[in-house]
Amino acid sequence: MLILKKKDIIQYVTLNEVLIPIIEEAFISLSKGKTVMPPIMRIDIEKYHGESDVKAAYVEGLDSFAIKIASGFFDNPKLGLPSSNGLMVLLDSETGVIKSVLLDEGYLTDTRTAIAGAIASKYLSNQDSNTVGIIGAGIQARLQLKAILLVRKINKINIWARDQVKATQFVDSLKDLKIEINISQSCKDLASVSDIIITTTPSKKPLLEFDWIKKGTHITAMGSDAEQKNELHPNIIKLCDTYVPDSQHQTTILGELNHAIKENLISPNDKFNDLGSIIIDPSLGRKNKEDITICDLTGTGVQDTAIARYTYNICKKNNLGIKI
Amino acid sequence: MLILKKKDIIQYVTLNEVLIPIIEEAFISLSKGKTVMPPIMRIDIEKYHGESDVKAAYVEGLDSFAIKIASGFFDNPKLGLPSSNGLMVLLDSETGVIKSVLLDEGYLTDTRTAIAGAIASKYLSNQDSNTVGIIGAGIQARLQLKAILLVRKINKINIWARDQVKATQFVDSLKDLKIEINISQSCKDLASVSDIIITTTPSKKPLLEFDWIKKGTHITAMGSDAEQKNELHPNIIKLCDTYVPDSQHQTTILGELNHAIKENLISPNDKFNDLGSIIIDPSLGRKNKEDITICDLTGTGVQDTAIARYTYNICKKNNLGIKI
Repeated sequence: MLILKKKDIIQYVTLNEVLIPIIEEAFISLSKGKTVMPPIMRIDIEKYHGESDVKAAYVEGLDSFAIKIASGFFDNPKLGLPSSNGLMVLLDSETGVIKSVLLDEGYLTDTRTAIAGAIASKYLSNQDSNTVGIIGAGIQARLQLKAILLVRKINKINIWARDQVKATQFVDSLKDLKIEINISQSCKDLASVSDIIITTTPSKKPLLEFDWIKKGTHITAMGSDAEQKNELHPNIIKLCDTYVPDSQHQTTILGELNHAIKENLISPNDKFNDLGSIIIDPSLGRKNKEDITICDLTGTGVQDTAIARYTYNICKKNNLGIKI
Repeated sequence: MLILKKKDIIQYVTLNEVLIPIIEEAFISLSKGKTVMPPIMRIDIEKYHGESDVKAAYVEGLDSFAIKIASGFFDNPKLGLPSSNGLMVLLDSETGVIKSVLLDEGYLTDTRTAIAGAIASKYLSNQDSNTVGIIGAGIQARLQLKAILLVRKINKINIWARDQVKATQFVDSLKDLKIEINISQSCKDLASVSDIIITTTPSKKPLLEFDWIKKGTHITAMGSDAEQKNELHPNIIKLCDTYVPDSQHQTTILGELNHAIKENLISPNDKFNDLGSIIIDPSLGRKNKEDITICDLTGTGVQDTAIARYTYNICKKNNLGIKI
């Protein structure tokens, strides 16, 4: 059994193009129904403004599967601690024997989430999209930005965040990218000048209205991963040309789709092509340049299994970690 | 962060009376509603006859909580491996920081399950019960037997197992107890001579009928922890004097109660006093010597949190484990 620490993992697993086909494969398996992916388990600790989620997925034919704990404790920064934390456990599919505990402190979750964003834009945005608008200024905002550069030639970045100080810090921290960066005064302003919009906030109220969205825009909404979270006005889901969930089972409960169903804008019986099916057949996604496309990402266990397996294999090959 | 291996844990955590009040406290918290205990997560890997369950519980006021992975891969013995496996993760309740990974390989689950059995008999069986019938011959059968000796003066043990060879091996392995042990020819025979009956099998068909049960018997049914498992004829739940679930929410889905509800013998709206409420007020349990009482154990996350916290504290105090 191999214990891998974050310091081991970051040596070999970084946010780069190598991970794209690995996470694409995961979405394909999910779409083909070749997975056992139970509903997310969630432990809410309201008193401390914290939550721990457990996700897991077995993919048919793979010799191992992951069970992941990801925690968000939102008062931690006041204590000088990061909000996110967690680990992944890799189990042998045939015997249940534990092959590895990956003490990644949430790093692998952040990484596979960013890669999913890159995949969404790769398949759904117009190929010539060159401006991106990022709503939010947290860790995932930064990673989504880095990830989109893997798939689109971006020459202008627009940022909006509720907290102006954080927005400014975020811009300062991105200077090494040597890409023009502007702080938008509102989400409406941001939408008016962005080909791709990525929402990465924990907002409980919609930040974007349908009327603000330019023709041809692709939006990846990845902030909502809980019942009450909501970044897009539910109308957008109804009026857009193509809506794509990572897992419709999950977005119905946790994603933007949840709110559109609750407001009777979408029937709970409507079936949408998921991200995996678009990867298999991109013609199911964007039909023409003017389309407005939405990808609703809640984060899936198959992504965790994919990145945990990759990390274990590459670290083992390089003799990293503590054997127990 | 402390990594604890099974060899560390077994030095300080053994099946003894010290654990009884610790697990009792857990049931009390659950009964009082002072816990956040999400539904069990389950990953079934049918191809390999395996399953991994995840259980978790936060108990209000405690500074840490556990998330547990427990696997059962039932073809493992053919490969020379134990069926059970798993680990527990202990998290800080205030920050989500991981305090410990307990690589117990299922040992703590086995132990807290046995202690729950002892607690059930302590509160529900007649004080002068001195014969116990064990149905099943696996690890948990052995542990339930050891556990009951902590709470009742047993002078005769009856065993029944489907596999006669295993039953004989089981009896041989118990010779050091210096208690009379008999192999029963049937579950009916066993029931006719046992004051307390403990069922510890993965049976999918009832093994005990109501008519076979002596007046005054207490039964702890702990084999059923999945929808299709069933050890007691559903009639027993209806006709017994007192039915006690560990968690009615769980036994409705996974326990013996599940089958009684499915056969319309019990209304899904009926409310039963759970084990925690019986510990708080034993008069809610057995009313007189002739009563037939049933305790339906599916295994709860609060037991895991209780034993993980105890194990972490005692191992840390004794400088065991690997600090990471």
